[in-house]
Amino acid sequence: MAKRSGVTAPAGFRAGGMSCGVKKDGAKDLALIVSDHPAVAWGVFTKNRVVGAPVTVSRAHMASKTARLVVANSGNSNTYGKNALENAKKMARAAAKAIGCAEREAFVASTGVIGQELPIGIIEKGVDELAGEISLTGGGDAAEAIMTTDLVKKECSRKIKIGGKTVTVGGCAKGSGMIHPNMATMLAFLTTDAAVSKPVLKTIVKKACDVSFNRITVDGDTSTSDMFIMMANGASGAPAITKASGKAYDALLGAVTTICVDLAKKIARDGEGATKFITVKTSGMKSEKAACDVAMSIAKSPLVKTAMFGRDANWGRIIGAAGNAGHPIDLSKATLKISGVTVFKNGAPAKGDWEAKAAPKLEKRDVTISLDFSAGKAGAEVWTCDLTCDYIRINADYRS
Amino acid sequence: MAKRSGVTAPAGFRAGGMSCGVKKDGAKDLALIVSDHPAVAWGVFTKNRVVGAPVTVSRAHMASKTARLVVANSGNSNTYGKNALENAKKMARAAAKAIGCAEREAFVASTGVIGQELPIGIIEKGVDELAGEISLTGGGDAAEAIMTTDLVKKECSRKIKIGGKTVTVGGCAKGSGMIHPNMATMLAFLTTDAAVSKPVLKTIVKKACDVSFNRITVDGDTSTSDMFIMMANGASGAPAITKASGKAYDALLGAVTTICVDLAKKIARDGEGATKFITVKTSGMKSEKAACDVAMSIAKSPLVKTAMFGRDANWGRIIGAAGNAGHPIDLSKATLKISGVTVFKNGAPAKGDWEAKAAPKLEKRDVTISLDFSAGKAGAEVWTCDLTCDYIRINADYRS
Repeated sequence: MAKRSGVTAPAGFRAGGMSCGVKKDGAKDLALIVSDHPAVAWGVFTKNRVVGAPVTVSRAHMASKTARLVVANSGNSNTYGKNALENAKKMARAAAKAIGCAEREAFVASTGVIGQELPIGIIEKGVDELAGEISLTGGGDAAEAIMTTDLVKKECSRKIKIGGKTVTVGGCAKGSGMIHPNMATMLAFLTTDAAVSKPVLKTIVKKACDVSFNRITVDGDTSTSDMFIMMANGASGAPAITKASGKAYDALLGAVTTICVDLAKKIARDGEGATKFITVKTSGMKSEKAACDVAMSIAKSPLVKTAMFGRDANWGRIIGAAGNAGHPIDLSKATLKISGVTVFKNGAPAKGDWEAKAAPKLEKRDVTISLDFSAGKAGAEVWTCDLTCDYIRINADYRS
Repeated sequence: MAKRSGVTAPAGFRAGGMSCGVKKDGAKDLALIVSDHPAVAWGVFTKNRVVGAPVTVSRAHMASKTARLVVANSGNSNTYGKNALENAKKMARAAAKAIGCAEREAFVASTGVIGQELPIGIIEKGVDELAGEISLTGGGDAAEAIMTTDLVKKECSRKIKIGGKTVTVGGCAKGSGMIHPNMATMLAFLTTDAAVSKPVLKTIVKKACDVSFNRITVDGDTSTSDMFIMMANGASGAPAITKASGKAYDALLGAVTTICVDLAKKIARDGEGATKFITVKTSGMKSEKAACDVAMSIAKSPLVKTAMFGRDANWGRIIGAAGNAGHPIDLSKATLKISGVTVFKNGAPAKGDWEAKAAPKLEKRDVTISLDFSAGKAGAEVWTCDLTCDYIRINADYRS
């Protein structure tokens, strides 16, 4: 039996997913997420200077006071070309018409192959059909319908109490390649039945995004199409949050951050061709920026990522990648651990047979690289996966 | 019969390469390049904030008025650890003693596995032996002795006329992975018998490096150990070049740049696991920085590089990578060609069957990606290779 999961876990949201024929293999390729009541919404978008048509349309629709829906397709990213913008507008218009709201209340997203014209006819037809099928248990289908090279569906939800009422936050996401900070080939949609003002929602979305979706990397490429949209419809009946401080704000920010971090980790874990999920932690640094930059430099290094694939405790590459971040680094007090095994300490390899100790840890699916500099209080955590032959195969053959 | 090639093409330089036992397989691993006369020298070094011990020593020796030699080993990068600095100094000292010059006149370089202690004893013994074997035809052996995962030896030379005298510039280089601007796991040694003042040599080295070694990328990783050193000994008898302008200066700068570009292309062509050599050209841009950044963003995109491996004219990824450079981009007047075939023009895919036309071009070993924006006069050219399963295999298994 279908459960109320992901974006349909909060009250007052219905969703669904179907195959409308964009994907040739008959897999689900169209998702619709609808708030029964006008919701406030905010989004963040790719920082790539070339943006896809759906980004242009959805960004413009953020100016609307209220939002009702997200419509998204997979299989075609509708990025550029003569009709791209018009087709993105048509897609929003079709969904708005089917649901009975204004076009500006509809967010639109597309993901998939870049550069082919969107088959707007079958999408318009599909949207109309899907609008009649959305349900309180359709979150899972929506999550499935936005998948591209993803191997697993990514959704989660969490309940908190605000003013004595149960408030739920739910979400789904897709993405497994072309993942790098700044919304890179990644779609994430969050819903909540909390009541929250638009300025506060904006703050929450930005803060949660900074420590989740902006902390993962698969291959360092930043896509042109991707976005994170959150809708809050107040259906929980909890008191409205109208300032960015206080217990209720902290609770909602905490829940949204948890959902975002969980979805972000699911994306890194499902990285194209990945055999390992890698957590990179830095600590004892002077600033959070340095801590984050150094962690990200390690996480995106192809040499570190291939070493992890090869089960190689190659601390030299990790230290080298750390230095590559451009921040001054003093190795004389640094400690590097791989899944808890100290492999480098105070400027030199660790004593004893650290290779033998690290070997069984490197056989595990989850590996943690921790680098401490004993030079301050700042730290950061980022997530990535290993770089494997399958990544190459997937991306060399993608269009064929 | 051995020829006077590479670093021994100019007058007054002797060189050699031998196996001293650092590499387990008996391949050459020790190189010595000696100027018979005191030379002026300049070098540029990795911009990684973690630097190997040989970089520290060689950078300090740049302060010396004169230089006599470069000693380099492969198989071990002598990067960090308790004795790394002392071992780098010992290596310079052993070479200086064997040749009969001051320690500060010796540059030292190491490349290979990071993090294992340098076997300084066998290197000292080897240097002593090699000093007796260097010759006017030993440039090729020196080029071979600095190879690590390189498949081909990289050297070249060029003759010019200065003040009626024949002046020769020669060089060798190594590097095939961990290649990214700022001297990334790359060693390059140039020699010339031109007479040139140290300040002018510094200018020439910097200018040539900017448009050659800083314009290649294999995997975006920047190493800790690498350097480009040039020695000029005046043995040609040509008049000294003491200012950074004029015909003689232009001729020498041109020859050095040609050598550097040639060596840089050889490095990109020999990229780890590469099946393709890719030239990325941008043009019609407003600034050289933007032109270079956009070209580099395309060249380092794993998605572009895997598409090239897959013989896929995936213009969407190329445009996406271009936007990723962070400069404003107007696609409405942009033209993208793959090996001369227009695949994208004025904001949309090209008309006609460009895929069929591009297909045979993509089967070739050499592919050119040209992106013109019709918005200015600036352009840039960078070189890279495709990203293949063999890259992963080489780097996953490197230490085993």
